[in-house]
Amino acid sequence: MTGKLWGVGTGPGDPDLVTLKAARAVREADVVAFFAKEGNHGHARRTAAGLIRPGTPELPLLYPVTTEIPTHHPDYKASIAGFYARSAETVARHLDAGKSVAVLSEGDPLFYGSYMHLHVRLAPRYAAEVIPGVTAMSGCWSQVGLPLVQGDDVLTVLPGTMEEGQLARRLADTEAAVIMKIGRNLPKIRRALAAAGRLGSAIYVERGTMEGTLSTPLEDKPDDKAPYFSIVLVPGWENRP
Amino acid sequence: MTGKLWGVGTGPGDPDLVTLKAARAVREADVVAFFAKEGNHGHARRTAAGLIRPGTPELPLLYPVTTEIPTHHPDYKASIAGFYARSAETVARHLDAGKSVAVLSEGDPLFYGSYMHLHVRLAPRYAAEVIPGVTAMSGCWSQVGLPLVQGDDVLTVLPGTMEEGQLARRLADTEAAVIMKIGRNLPKIRRALAAAGRLGSAIYVERGTMEGTLSTPLEDKPDDKAPYFSIVLVPGWENRP
Repeated sequence: MTGKLWGVGTGPGDPDLVTLKAARAVREADVVAFFAKEGNHGHARRTAAGLIRPGTPELPLLYPVTTEIPTHHPDYKASIAGFYARSAETVARHLDAGKSVAVLSEGDPLFYGSYMHLHVRLAPRYAAEVIPGVTAMSGCWSQVGLPLVQGDDVLTVLPGTMEEGQLARRLADTEAAVIMKIGRNLPKIRRALAAAGRLGSAIYVERGTMEGTLSTPLEDKPDDKAPYFSIVLVPGWENRP
Repeated sequence: MTGKLWGVGTGPGDPDLVTLKAARAVREADVVAFFAKEGNHGHARRTAAGLIRPGTPELPLLYPVTTEIPTHHPDYKASIAGFYARSAETVARHLDAGKSVAVLSEGDPLFYGSYMHLHVRLAPRYAAEVIPGVTAMSGCWSQVGLPLVQGDDVLTVLPGTMEEGQLARRLADTEAAVIMKIGRNLPKIRRALAAAGRLGSAIYVERGTMEGTLSTPLEDKPDDKAPYFSIVLVPGWENRP
């Protein structure tokens, strides 16, 4: 009997925003795995810390150091593909030994999550179940009490890495938007929002639902520094009854 | 001392997909409110049923019967606006009496949820906190194990009510899409997906994470009948490393 693979969404960061099902899966897992950087176990591991049974074997899957290689370079793709393949085989060894493995994934596992790389490699060979989680964006708009979309609104989720003209075009063509991957893209995102006439309603949220969180109208946030994982929210719902 | 208003996301339908924080808010609330139709207390109330303390006063906010009036007609807007205003005052009377009120909201309260109508009316006057929930769409793509978006993918959430040409244009202009409000719009949605070259990868999910759920490639689903709250998923992540 091989073990079961669990993709466990740990939610936006507040440990109380884990689901009942995710909490149980982490408590009952034989092995707890998570993607991490050397020296930083990441948000998902921190969020789930209080749920892991003491003594449970942990399996950090450490990203290779690739900061020297541009992400569109073939060497980067080859390096990261090799890493995901090796990570999948590391997890597979535990599944082969009959152990259940819970892979912690911040937010929702299949929504921009690294767990997806394991799922596509392992779900064809092992029993696998995904437990959805509250996304970072839901955590952010709930924290600031900002109604995002209603009725027939279109919502567009955009990466802040997108070219400025494209970003402006899409922001002008949607009722609501969520912009992710902010960091050094903030000045460009600000210009695109202004070009689309949406700057005035945009809200900036940093570390949503976590300790030290910060939120402010984007117009009041200087361009000086923004973490990569901060979020900009552009609300829809213009025609309120 | 007035009571506190809680907007409580109850998630996609499986009672295990409620968050720890939402479960506690429902258990501790003095009054539990929810939007409902006459004779049908709805998904949120069903999902949270096991969490409500026996004897807790419940406050169903019953939608007026408006099926005779087209939703874009001024009479509909006036009728529904009056209903939301009266509902807010009904909740306010409990808050004024010092009672905490948990408003159950399926999925995430600020993501197409009726709770938003109470929040904008009551949050300026009372302490209010929104507890995010797992959205129906996350529940659906997790149930079918479908990786939805990765890396720099754009995700577009579209109402199935949209005009066919607009729908096709937007489906051709995004990496991933979620189409909501299916029902009688299914044949039109199918044509728009085909026009955008996206029909082959589309997945249809009905009653995601609930009892009696059904999922299938959209190409295998006949146009005969589809509930309004079913969902169509169009995955992104074309360039997998």
